[in-house]
Amino acid sequence: MDLPNFTDVQAAAERIRPLVKRTPVMTCNHLNELSGAELLFKCENFQTMGAFKFRGACNALFGGKAEDLSGGVVTQSSGNHGAALALAARRRGIPAHVVMPENSVPVKVEAVRGYGATVHFCAANQTARDAMTAQIQAQTGAVLVHPYNDSAIIAGQGTAALELLDEVGRLDVLMAPVGGGGLMSGTALAGRGVDQGMRIVGAEPAGADDAWRSLRAGVITPVEKPDTIADGLRATLGPRPFVLLTELGVEILTVDEAAIVAAMRLIWERMKLVIEPSSAVPLAAVLSYPEQFAGRRVGIILTGGNVDLGALPW
Amino acid sequence: MDLPNFTDVQAAAERIRPLVKRTPVMTCNHLNELSGAELLFKCENFQTMGAFKFRGACNALFGGKAEDLSGGVVTQSSGNHGAALALAARRRGIPAHVVMPENSVPVKVEAVRGYGATVHFCAANQTARDAMTAQIQAQTGAVLVHPYNDSAIIAGQGTAALELLDEVGRLDVLMAPVGGGGLMSGTALAGRGVDQGMRIVGAEPAGADDAWRSLRAGVITPVEKPDTIADGLRATLGPRPFVLLTELGVEILTVDEAAIVAAMRLIWERMKLVIEPSSAVPLAAVLSYPEQFAGRRVGIILTGGNVDLGALPW
Repeated sequence: MDLPNFTDVQAAAERIRPLVKRTPVMTCNHLNELSGAELLFKCENFQTMGAFKFRGACNALFGGKAEDLSGGVVTQSSGNHGAALALAARRRGIPAHVVMPENSVPVKVEAVRGYGATVHFCAANQTARDAMTAQIQAQTGAVLVHPYNDSAIIAGQGTAALELLDEVGRLDVLMAPVGGGGLMSGTALAGRGVDQGMRIVGAEPAGADDAWRSLRAGVITPVEKPDTIADGLRATLGPRPFVLLTELGVEILTVDEAAIVAAMRLIWERMKLVIEPSSAVPLAAVLSYPEQFAGRRVGIILTGGNVDLGALPW
Repeated sequence: MDLPNFTDVQAAAERIRPLVKRTPVMTCNHLNELSGAELLFKCENFQTMGAFKFRGACNALFGGKAEDLSGGVVTQSSGNHGAALALAARRRGIPAHVVMPENSVPVKVEAVRGYGATVHFCAANQTARDAMTAQIQAQTGAVLVHPYNDSAIIAGQGTAALELLDEVGRLDVLMAPVGGGGLMSGTALAGRGVDQGMRIVGAEPAGADDAWRSLRAGVITPVEKPDTIADGLRATLGPRPFVLLTELGVEILTVDEAAIVAAMRLIWERMKLVIEPSSAVPLAAVLSYPEQFAGRRVGIILTGGNVDLGALPW
């Protein structure tokens, strides 16, 4: 299988520079005191369309994929990847097709449509999704852009960590959350490329700890019913991310739901940042295993801010 | 009555530079498209202790007030000013006393105490508050630092607009919300000092429109029962702010509650910023009177982010 390397991340950074935001790095005295560590947060919640996913989508659509994309692109996603691909395709001037389960949340469907993609509904199971995707590919010539098991996507996601390292210099630890593993793989490529000795840590909900199980078992080990508030992290580790995380020596720390919710509230209250639950998982790990981080300089990717505010009291 | 001028704002900026954060200016493509204006948001929600109030408190306590402060400071506040004064006093190494109504929200009491101030409870009416304040002054020698009717406070609050103008250059309109008028007065001093021709607009909830009434009547005209979600804007315009807003040609625009809530949601959802309702009032005015802002370059002070997240569903 083709796998991206550090040079691909550097090339992605060059390629997408005119398209993405160079998001700020923020700090918080209160969280530094609470953890005993120096925490540097890369704020991808401020990225275009609200999440790091736009980086990978831009890299794939603006030259990172080998295929001819004139027939458009297709993906399966009920979340940020679908919206990111839709917006990148609009910028590129090609059609985008997003296969979504028929029980998708209306606000997410509207986001994808709002960015100009065609939404195709299907039954909420993988067989139906794959059949619908194959049908669209056959009818339109659209190229599949997988949300995380894709070299161009992985290289694009790694550019967030590359910018972080460029801005803050040496880190003891580099952290991101782990879902399907696209961001974590790209982050690890960037981190290892800059500093062989850095600790690279993926943070994962205990209720969706397939990466932790997989790296321990040496084979991809899905969790049958992922159960976590961190909806962006319920996917199973992809084959390419599995190989990259293994080869690059990524450690996994798991955290419980209460730690995730507490970390999310801290970031909202103390940093005044709207983040989605997945973004809070690395801070939850820092606060759950303080002895591993005290006195260290720790970079954290805050992945996104697309949270449903419908439940707010106003 | 003594009144601050532009030079006082410039001196305040020099004085508090080592103490406060130079907060970022942020933009949002979606809000620019929605309004037809170019909106530049000065993010004081990222200021130390979560609001612009820390600027005024630092200016008052680090040399802006003429009095000897060795006996400490006292104020009446159930909100951000109390917390700001407490923290500034701790940095200065002097005692702070905050008079709060006995029905204050516990989380606000804890914030003030957390910053090291002594909280004095009294009945929830102005007579009781004034009596308690006078008693503390007599017993301790503490100097009263009014939340907004104070020249040093006004000059300090004006430094946010001064930084904004320094960073973004020429503006057509400069906006802030109006409560007691301290921020608005300082903002107007900064704006007029930099550019005589700039429109300076205060945004006010229709349910607490004492500034609008007062400037129209030519005399301070309180609203008997202020009713607005924007809890930071329920105070009545102070005498010094009344004179300054009048002399500096500040316009007032009023907005209804639905517009405030809609603007707040837009800033949370689209800018990923946690702001308190008061911060949303200028954007609400831009969206309520679009013909006044279309095609203009508009600077807006986002005042703070200390909102009670207790009602969140997590």
